[in-house]
Amino acid sequence: MSRILTLQPLTAAAFARFGEVIEPAQARRTFPINAGTAQRFHDLARIDPGADGRVALGWVQAQPRALPFAVRLLERHPRGSQAFVPLGPARWIVVVADSPEAEPLAFLAERGQGVNYAPGVWHHPLIALDAPTDFLVIDREGPGDNCDEVMLAQVWTVAP
Amino acid sequence: MSRILTLQPLTAAAFARFGEVIEPAQARRTFPINAGTAQRFHDLARIDPGADGRVALGWVQAQPRALPFAVRLLERHPRGSQAFVPLGPARWIVVVADSPEAEPLAFLAERGQGVNYAPGVWHHPLIALDAPTDFLVIDREGPGDNCDEVMLAQVWTVAP
Repeated sequence: MSRILTLQPLTAAAFARFGEVIEPAQARRTFPINAGTAQRFHDLARIDPGADGRVALGWVQAQPRALPFAVRLLERHPRGSQAFVPLGPARWIVVVADSPEAEPLAFLAERGQGVNYAPGVWHHPLIALDAPTDFLVIDREGPGDNCDEVMLAQVWTVAP
Repeated sequence: MSRILTLQPLTAAAFARFGEVIEPAQARRTFPINAGTAQRFHDLARIDPGADGRVALGWVQAQPRALPFAVRLLERHPRGSQAFVPLGPARWIVVVADSPEAEPLAFLAERGQGVNYAPGVWHHPLIALDAPTDFLVIDREGPGDNCDEVMLAQVWTVAP
């Protein structure tokens, strides 16, 4: 039996226990730079590579997935945070859960919203929509295994 | 008297002594992820917040500047690296110099190319082109002054 996950808007409040929503509106400080020709939205996420890691920058080119989408697995990175920011205003889907046994939450990211998963947060791998989408990834490089993956006992379905 | 800077293509080789060009082609490792539905271009830049800093993530909304553009000042961040990646395939201009006394180099970034300035590299503040452009900024938060700015004795002009 497959259970249905209804997409909800990606808001900082709803996502707070999993990490941060990366978008200008979530800046802790905002100020003009470059003689007023630009505006900086500062310090949007807790980028955390752990005590023995360093921050690594990656680029992912993701093929779009179709809805309904079956959520069969989750992963987590216990040793560091992991942020994804689409390189443009693409829509994509963020699936997170408090544990592999809990009901996941499915968020629709829009308008270029990114997310930063806090260390250890269970999440589904990238789900691009609509078109091939490039993402910048800010995560961790360092010693030790940093990816746990689990197949779920229950398949969930993200509804269109 | 104003001297002319001719725009050159932003290549990893030409930019190497200032930092890294951030684009998929510069990945140290490339591999499929997410059951083959995405490709990861890994570890694109030496993100360095210094021994006493942490990596901070910012978002900048920059107004476009017109060419010819007068380069009157440079800045540097001695305590950490600073990366800029446009959130989309926008063109922009990267101006760097070996010192405030040296002739700057002016690069045209295209196709979504970003750059990471190594700690202490003299560079001009963001120069967007064509349209308002959003950038992701990956730099440093931490104790101590981390921005030196100098007015140049000689004005340089980036030619169209």
